[in-house]
Amino acid sequence: MQLAILGCGAVGQSVADLASEYGHEVVALADSNGATIDPAGIDIGSALQRKIDGDAVGSEAPETLFEAEYDVLVEATPTTLDSAEPGFTHVKRALETNHHVVLANKGPVAERYEELRALEADSAGTLRFEATVGGAIPVLSTIEDCTPQAVTAVRGILNGTANFILTRMAAEGLDYEHVLAEAQDLGVAEADPAFDVDGTDAALKCVILANVLADGGFSFEDAQVRGIEDIPGSALKLAAEDGRTIRLIGEATRDGVHVGPRLVPEHSTLAVTGTRNIVQIETKHAGSLHNSGLGAGGRETASAVLADINRLPPN
Amino acid sequence: MQLAILGCGAVGQSVADLASEYGHEVVALADSNGATIDPAGIDIGSALQRKIDGDAVGSEAPETLFEAEYDVLVEATPTTLDSAEPGFTHVKRALETNHHVVLANKGPVAERYEELRALEADSAGTLRFEATVGGAIPVLSTIEDCTPQAVTAVRGILNGTANFILTRMAAEGLDYEHVLAEAQDLGVAEADPAFDVDGTDAALKCVILANVLADGGFSFEDAQVRGIEDIPGSALKLAAEDGRTIRLIGEATRDGVHVGPRLVPEHSTLAVTGTRNIVQIETKHAGSLHNSGLGAGGRETASAVLADINRLPPN
Repeated sequence: MQLAILGCGAVGQSVADLASEYGHEVVALADSNGATIDPAGIDIGSALQRKIDGDAVGSEAPETLFEAEYDVLVEATPTTLDSAEPGFTHVKRALETNHHVVLANKGPVAERYEELRALEADSAGTLRFEATVGGAIPVLSTIEDCTPQAVTAVRGILNGTANFILTRMAAEGLDYEHVLAEAQDLGVAEADPAFDVDGTDAALKCVILANVLADGGFSFEDAQVRGIEDIPGSALKLAAEDGRTIRLIGEATRDGVHVGPRLVPEHSTLAVTGTRNIVQIETKHAGSLHNSGLGAGGRETASAVLADINRLPPN
Repeated sequence: MQLAILGCGAVGQSVADLASEYGHEVVALADSNGATIDPAGIDIGSALQRKIDGDAVGSEAPETLFEAEYDVLVEATPTTLDSAEPGFTHVKRALETNHHVVLANKGPVAERYEELRALEADSAGTLRFEATVGGAIPVLSTIEDCTPQAVTAVRGILNGTANFILTRMAAEGLDYEHVLAEAQDLGVAEADPAFDVDGTDAALKCVILANVLADGGFSFEDAQVRGIEDIPGSALKLAAEDGRTIRLIGEATRDGVHVGPRLVPEHSTLAVTGTRNIVQIETKHAGSLHNSGLGAGGRETASAVLADINRLPPN
């Protein structure tokens, strides 16, 4: 397939880098600073090098990406809340012109799910968004295969930064600020880690899950969210004395979304360590399916984008 | 879709039972004793009741199933080795007449994989076989989404009976024969548990995985297999003193298949308990994906069959 990739962060760059290995061609690559277009396939190496050098990825205006001939828009621009712009309009434009869209950007499917499904229904294109939940872990495709109606709840650890911090606090008996600084040094937490540690990132993923289970009806403001910033090291010590630990757990059902720190048995399946994520999918006929893996990272998330492209209906 | 279900054991019965919930119609149901056919959809309740009463599921000759008009053959007859008959010929017949085939029977894809793929290539029908590996756990679909080329190895616990026995031996300090008897009482082990405890069942699943990774080339005789029948209770005690336990682990790579008891850390992800199965899929770009769930059972395996039907190309 011919890919138009919008967004040149870790995910967009990795999709561009891996595309040919999966048999696809990148005909356009853009971010807010510029675009590079080539119907014969762009020079990916040079484009990525420009990005590494701090230059614009291309000299064309960003919007020219939409004028290219392509099969799939990969929307990997940063997640925004509320109106979810400019991501929402990117998706709208592609669907309205009968292109497929594969999202890594959580905003549109968390905040304006029903509108997107309506646009998709009127389009010859298909919308997929595995990469918005759980990085490399196949979550939405598993739910799709079970059929959403057969899934009663989805629960899990969906933010690796918060999980890494809690794992280290428990392992080393250190307090939150200390471990956060360590995580930032390691690149596991961003300079502004707010969305990871306050539960927003996990909540957005759970809102997306609730929208899939209920076929819409939820947005970020519906989620009940608590983060990990106020957990003292002593809480983890106390938990350990009782054979438990603390994890930031998100839960999505047709009734709503809850994210918050929870006590879990120390060695339970749910207590994955470090930056790993885990999703427990409760089903009517197939019991409880647990999928765990790397929930974040450029290449990991890109692999979910490429899996989605693989599952698009053929042209 | 219209389903023709061949095999009326736990899996065949469960597929028949759940079909309408997933929007499908059962137009034929048969086993070696008889068939019931109805283009308008068979009376599933009555057919299953006849089976429960010990009667043939229908009064027609079994082969009449192939004369019915149907979209998908669900082949759920008992797994056989070597020539994998009569299952192989069932699949051949359906593919040669341009029908889709969804397998729960491991024999054909373990023993004659390349022949099946050749038949599929010449057919308008598609062959899928998620239910042959890991019951309810999405394994083959995960590999398919990653693309097999991006998967380097698959490892895991793929037989719930053996895993249950080892879990109980470790938990209770009992020996193998005692726990095997308990497992048979609970219906977790069959009257003839050979394939479960000697590693054959796990090996067949790993052979199927190796065939998927390497696009053929393996059959059961290529597998190196050891079972759990010779593990003394003392071995598990010794392991526990070192913080380890013993699990029957299967591994499939492009180079071959190995199944045997292994020491694993007591609380490692790999050490699932009871009848649960777990699969670790090692990928080039997405790290290590762990999928666990219920690896056996009529309804659980039926859910994998129905997920496969969901993924068939539309007519």
